[in-house]
Amino acid sequence: MARRVINIGQAVLAKNQGLADALRADFRQAGTAVVNILSSPGSGKTELLARSLDRITAEFKTGVFVGDLATDRDAARLDGHGARVIQINTDGYCHLEANMIRAAADEMDMSGLQLLIIENVGNLVCPGSHDLGEDLRVVLLSTTEGEDKPLKYPSIFKGAHVAVVTKVDLAEVLGWDRDAALENIRAVAPQVQILETSARSGTGLDAWVDLLRELVTNKSAEAARR
Amino acid sequence: MARRVINIGQAVLAKNQGLADALRADFRQAGTAVVNILSSPGSGKTELLARSLDRITAEFKTGVFVGDLATDRDAARLDGHGARVIQINTDGYCHLEANMIRAAADEMDMSGLQLLIIENVGNLVCPGSHDLGEDLRVVLLSTTEGEDKPLKYPSIFKGAHVAVVTKVDLAEVLGWDRDAALENIRAVAPQVQILETSARSGTGLDAWVDLLRELVTNKSAEAARR
Repeated sequence: MARRVINIGQAVLAKNQGLADALRADFRQAGTAVVNILSSPGSGKTELLARSLDRITAEFKTGVFVGDLATDRDAARLDGHGARVIQINTDGYCHLEANMIRAAADEMDMSGLQLLIIENVGNLVCPGSHDLGEDLRVVLLSTTEGEDKPLKYPSIFKGAHVAVVTKVDLAEVLGWDRDAALENIRAVAPQVQILETSARSGTGLDAWVDLLRELVTNKSAEAARR
Repeated sequence: MARRVINIGQAVLAKNQGLADALRADFRQAGTAVVNILSSPGSGKTELLARSLDRITAEFKTGVFVGDLATDRDAARLDGHGARVIQINTDGYCHLEANMIRAAADEMDMSGLQLLIIENVGNLVCPGSHDLGEDLRVVLLSTTEGEDKPLKYPSIFKGAHVAVVTKVDLAEVLGWDRDAALENIRAVAPQVQILETSARSGTGLDAWVDLLRELVTNKSAEAARR
């Protein structure tokens, strides 16, 4: 069905890939580590980010691009946590594209930036197809969404390096089946590293921040060697 | 940014609209009421449907088309609740399109069908742009997603006739701000009828079933007058 549309999509994706490759080269040159965070609406991307920024911005210069169809609510929530923040309004687009990242990078003072975190539009489908030049792709799965989501939205999990389970403080009241959820993640994406967190209680945030710290350290060292 | 892509999208949408108009004419001729249900992944579409089918399929002949990127899990969950069920796998598409509905209608025995419920792909963006020939468009908002989602994904709420708040049994543990949520829905979509439900506890299901019953009754009466 609708093969013609799929072909159009492939041409658009090929163009995005060229722009993403150029972004990746520029970020590498600058020694900036880049993380792309994807999830459903309401999985807790912004809350996880706010808690993370409180811990990391004293250690290294951090920037955030936050994508939404409309409003600057997420940028407002992230403001005051020590990072440079730009809100990208996609005006109907269900995902961020590499050209939007380029435009935001032209707007932000990128000098000395060690970590750039991109919070994608809340969507378990579209953002998975678009490389943004990131080093690390992270997908969130909240306990409130149900254990079956990796099976039902496999491509976004297959393309991720890290899967972060969020809102584990709600596990008991929800009857969250942890074993089934982890098994479902591993079934579609055996490569991912899995973290379990709660931004509300603080569970698992140390491991998440350690992961970001290691990424930044490696990237800076790589840039220094050149 | 990326205006060229937007133009491609508009041509595709125009084609979808023609197919949706033809579907709507056929459904009207047959006296079949059609409901299109949209929400984020994990908002509770399938659970609400399963509970609804238990109440309505004894009263009128009901069919369900359920859309997912992959798996037939939702069709399996809905099986045995008295409705005819077809799973549509979109193979990467983030939404259902009118041509997929036509293909499913060709597969299903539509004779005497009084109600067709379409469970769209879990996504708060893409499904909003595609008319499927439905009479009633319903958007779900679960308490677990947060009160701000109508503001951040306005177009899908603007296009809906009914907004169903789900999982209200979790409101207290989540600290759900009911007033703020309803105000946000009304701010972007003053036209919608708002229902508050819990498939788990049964709260609000009577009002939801009454709404379906009224839709079917009106549609059958309209067909009988011709």
